[in-house]
Amino acid sequence: MSENREVALHYVENHLPRFLEELKAFVRIPSISTESDAQVHMQAAANWVADQLRSLGAVNVALYPTEGHPVVCGEYLCGDEKARTLLIYGHYDVQPADPLELWQSPPFEPTQRGDYLYGRGASDMKGQLVAGLKALESILRTDQLNLNLRFLIEGEEELGSPHLGKFIAENPELLRADVAINLDGGILAPDFPTITVSLRGLAYFELRVYGPSTDLHSGLFGGIVHNPAQVLCELIAGMHDSKGRVTLPGFYDRVRPLSETERAELARLPLGEDYFLKTTGVLALYGEEGYTPLERLGARPTLEVNGLYSGYVGEGSKTVLPAYAMAKLSCRLVPDQDPKEVYQQLLDYLKACAPTTVRWEVIQHAGALPAMIETKRPEVAALSRAIEQVWGKKPAFKREGGTIPVVAQLREILGMPTILTGFGLPDDNLHAPNERLHLPTWQRGIRTLVYFFYHLME
Amino acid sequence: MSENREVALHYVENHLPRFLEELKAFVRIPSISTESDAQVHMQAAANWVADQLRSLGAVNVALYPTEGHPVVCGEYLCGDEKARTLLIYGHYDVQPADPLELWQSPPFEPTQRGDYLYGRGASDMKGQLVAGLKALESILRTDQLNLNLRFLIEGEEELGSPHLGKFIAENPELLRADVAINLDGGILAPDFPTITVSLRGLAYFELRVYGPSTDLHSGLFGGIVHNPAQVLCELIAGMHDSKGRVTLPGFYDRVRPLSETERAELARLPLGEDYFLKTTGVLALYGEEGYTPLERLGARPTLEVNGLYSGYVGEGSKTVLPAYAMAKLSCRLVPDQDPKEVYQQLLDYLKACAPTTVRWEVIQHAGALPAMIETKRPEVAALSRAIEQVWGKKPAFKREGGTIPVVAQLREILGMPTILTGFGLPDDNLHAPNERLHLPTWQRGIRTLVYFFYHLME
Repeated sequence: MSENREVALHYVENHLPRFLEELKAFVRIPSISTESDAQVHMQAAANWVADQLRSLGAVNVALYPTEGHPVVCGEYLCGDEKARTLLIYGHYDVQPADPLELWQSPPFEPTQRGDYLYGRGASDMKGQLVAGLKALESILRTDQLNLNLRFLIEGEEELGSPHLGKFIAENPELLRADVAINLDGGILAPDFPTITVSLRGLAYFELRVYGPSTDLHSGLFGGIVHNPAQVLCELIAGMHDSKGRVTLPGFYDRVRPLSETERAELARLPLGEDYFLKTTGVLALYGEEGYTPLERLGARPTLEVNGLYSGYVGEGSKTVLPAYAMAKLSCRLVPDQDPKEVYQQLLDYLKACAPTTVRWEVIQHAGALPAMIETKRPEVAALSRAIEQVWGKKPAFKREGGTIPVVAQLREILGMPTILTGFGLPDDNLHAPNERLHLPTWQRGIRTLVYFFYHLME
Repeated sequence: MSENREVALHYVENHLPRFLEELKAFVRIPSISTESDAQVHMQAAANWVADQLRSLGAVNVALYPTEGHPVVCGEYLCGDEKARTLLIYGHYDVQPADPLELWQSPPFEPTQRGDYLYGRGASDMKGQLVAGLKALESILRTDQLNLNLRFLIEGEEELGSPHLGKFIAENPELLRADVAINLDGGILAPDFPTITVSLRGLAYFELRVYGPSTDLHSGLFGGIVHNPAQVLCELIAGMHDSKGRVTLPGFYDRVRPLSETERAELARLPLGEDYFLKTTGVLALYGEEGYTPLERLGARPTLEVNGLYSGYVGEGSKTVLPAYAMAKLSCRLVPDQDPKEVYQQLLDYLKACAPTTVRWEVIQHAGALPAMIETKRPEVAALSRAIEQVWGKKPAFKREGGTIPVVAQLREILGMPTILTGFGLPDDNLHAPNERLHLPTWQRGIRTLVYFFYHLME
């Protein structure tokens, strides 16, 4: 077994340049799921994935339509009835690339500078998905893979996977597996491998405030009308108290307190204020009083403004009193919060606090439950060993601030646990200009996944 | 004199259809001064005005370059040394037309529906300028005009006239006159003629708040960074207190209190809450406690949000923690406030209230001093009589909430008083979609100006 593994690892080394070229081809496809005119690119990216699966020897590979973008599925059956079955999860969609002017090289022209490959999706998660596919290829071309694989590669992760739950519920046979392997995860730093044991959930809203029936002249009407942009600001300002806590009624009722043990575990990670000051570039950190940065990121819920719009935002000045103001707001949730309850809490807040001078409405976008992963599972141990073999050190367990809706959906709908892998880094500029992939870490990631799959065959 | 006037008034009646066609041609030119790519249209509109002046017999008609859009000047000298000299002021630029989708007919295709002509600039102020030119034409074609005229038609009024002060200061001989006649005014209602005796000033700012050095993923960083959009909202929310008063330090120090006499005069105008509820379409009015709507509009200063932008404002959701947030803010000022002092007050507020977690800056856009007009001047009496002759009722004096920077500039730089005329209406949708001109009022306006110019010859 160990000898065969070495052959597979040699295959990785020998084919890395080609793996990178294939990744670049994938990154060149601008598969932005939030843009309604990107259909042709979404189709191209899905087909690219399907071709990769077929080249691995997967069968029944197809694009399954949804109400949104298609899901790519396929399966590889090794013939051994006792073999473990894995559901390999990934997504082929990427975030929007705006603001374009802040990119140093075009987002969809993958560009290598130093140790990094720059491009939208290079890290999140085309790079991670290609790492998984290439680890499997390296085993399949050199050895027997004594695992059954099913693939679930969606195109709407960056939208919050709005149609994936329905797809999972309607296709349980297609996805049946012992455990899901989600390649969309990350590690703490190139020299500090980690395994993520907790994910935050998400509740995303659009708050719209309506004032006068049309934009007004701020001179002719300024002084008698409650400016909806001002009202929006007042409502948003009231959503945090002076201690950085979210004021939506009942917001913290279902938040599990951190145990002293877990606080101690998190405190061992080398991620203090200085690290985050450097990574974010802010003058000073901010957040809920009484918690360290890592606790706030992983174990405490948040409310963020993701977007603001009202009135005139072009060059120069326009003396408009706007008819309308809008904010995109989202909460990151921790166990045992529920996005449906948070929606109700937001409505309760607005009913209590919105003035009678304006109309308002809330539009719900995708939500996801928070998730905890069972650290005792053998697959977690297998991943931990694989990481130790490649990095030469044991991984630390960490809580993740981000959200992966499919993890919650597989658990809720199919009762399937998920092991998070993937080797993205905190400074990969995910969802931001100049997204990048750290190539040395990516190469280690491919090798780690080879070890991991071999351990799963044991 | 009276017979000659009747001939001129007949000329008005006989040529109204052509006057309207000429106005339509003027409205068709999209002379949006805030758009940097509208140069060709600005030039076309300036040339249209210059041709009109030449056709009136004006001499030395020329487009004078500025750092921005050109100023059109020209003069008509009647040969009588004792004749009064008027400076006719107007502007050929218009507001931007966005949001375009709210227009029922295209903004630059003037369209007649019922008693109205719809189009950007139809009322503000191409219609008013054409009314003045056509009143003069009606006299010049039928009689002797015993007045000297100078023309000052600018192209940057909707920008706040940023280069006009310099132009006025550098060209006093070109503009020398006894009094300025500003055609950019309005009346209260078609059956309620008014003369504006006070204008509010303007101080316009852009407030920018900078947080992290790049947009961040709201999951990976939400909870440790002070979201600049949240900070912006907190700062804006703090700019009004619970009584609707502006909280910038010292903001009200230089505000002249309303006298009881003037409060009584304003109270006679038929513009109560119901009127403004209907005109604006809001659920309830808002504003500084202790003042009526008309007092708040004309005699009290304001702070409005004219625009808000941060993060992702496209369709759907994007979980970005934005690096940057921006607001366009403007104050309407009343005597004796000064835009320079208000800028300092805003800085003082921000220095005191902005958190140390963010960087911020304020960009100053155009400002204008507030202005009061001397109601005892003979030109005011001439206008009052003209209105009474056409409308059959005396005009009421009112305070205006809007700002006309040139009024302050002519007073400050040349010591020249301004008489405000013009016959726009409060529901003309100035600076908003579906701007319109009430044609019966416009026609009365032309006739009123004929009477007015004859009174000025007396």
